[in-house]
Amino acid sequence: MKILIIGGAGTIGKYVTEHLQQAHEVLVAGRSDQHLYVDIADSSSIQKLLSAVGPLDAIICVAGEAKWDDFAKLSAADYDIGLRSKLMGQVNVVRYGVQHLKPGGSITLSTGILADDPVKKTASAAMVNGGIHSFVQAVALELGSKARINAVSAGVVAASYEKYQAYFPGHNPVPMQKVVNGYVRSVFGADSGKIIRIYE
Amino acid sequence: MKILIIGGAGTIGKYVTEHLQQAHEVLVAGRSDQHLYVDIADSSSIQKLLSAVGPLDAIICVAGEAKWDDFAKLSAADYDIGLRSKLMGQVNVVRYGVQHLKPGGSITLSTGILADDPVKKTASAAMVNGGIHSFVQAVALELGSKARINAVSAGVVAASYEKYQAYFPGHNPVPMQKVVNGYVRSVFGADSGKIIRIYE
Repeated sequence: MKILIIGGAGTIGKYVTEHLQQAHEVLVAGRSDQHLYVDIADSSSIQKLLSAVGPLDAIICVAGEAKWDDFAKLSAADYDIGLRSKLMGQVNVVRYGVQHLKPGGSITLSTGILADDPVKKTASAAMVNGGIHSFVQAVALELGSKARINAVSAGVVAASYEKYQAYFPGHNPVPMQKVVNGYVRSVFGADSGKIIRIYE
Repeated sequence: MKILIIGGAGTIGKYVTEHLQQAHEVLVAGRSDQHLYVDIADSSSIQKLLSAVGPLDAIICVAGEAKWDDFAKLSAADYDIGLRSKLMGQVNVVRYGVQHLKPGGSITLSTGILADDPVKKTASAAMVNGGIHSFVQAVALELGSKARINAVSAGVVAASYEKYQAYFPGHNPVPMQKVVNGYVRSVFGADSGKIIRIYE
């Protein structure tokens, strides 16, 4: 398979990349990649990337940011970061991505436990994750057999547990192999419109 | 109680208004209201309204729109309608609303079954509803005992069943009294951070 991983050099992305490239052609793209540059908040960069690398068997997006802060402090501009990146950035990966998939290909987006079970400071971050959950279910109804779409929603992953554990009291770190398996399930399984929750 | 209902002249809003005004002071605001004008997509109109009518015991928002269309046809501008109105419009009702609530007051937002169980043409509409579900849960964690926040998520309501039933094959119309009770539960109950699902 020929698989594009947007954000493939990030915390989760590098584990997914390492696993998939053992048996597949994996293209890693991201904001820090000079060869396959993409910033999902800029839809023209998504279109440019896809035109350069398609057609693809699978697209995985492990990118997207949102502002974390106290609800009382989040400004309109703060919300806009998440709306343009993690929310519409991923929506645009799907809008343009379906045009560059081989028949029966798949798109996998990334969300997180905040969508279902938020913590403090995540009014914006939880919101954009929850939006993607509903979006994925809605889009799958229209893609039919043309393409599959799923989201992997992980808990606090082991690789960034130290950095984030103070924000997630009592959450257990999710082993990276389980997180990787969420993406494997989306790409190689038959599911579509599924939120693959990897919370423990 | 002094209750503000944004969208109180709409399909659901008028039933909620009719019920609540039997025993409470109800202020109806909306885009078609000349006295208490508000368009939630314009945050300055929200601030102006709240400054004029507060402090309040409860704010109910039964307003907000999103574009319905085939996923393949939805443009960036189409998505923007839902982002500005049903999503950020309701977020801004909360951001500014909490400043005009009496201690222990409540805010109730409105979503819909699409968030959990979308139908075709709702990639944008489902997304913004799902975003609000996660937002409500996240914000409740920070408001604590200062104010309560919930969302009422209704199925296809009886009053607009004829108009929408073709989009919702096999869905049963939800009696208006049950929908009204969802809002009653949010305003007069003790819940916070709850998605009050009224689907049958």
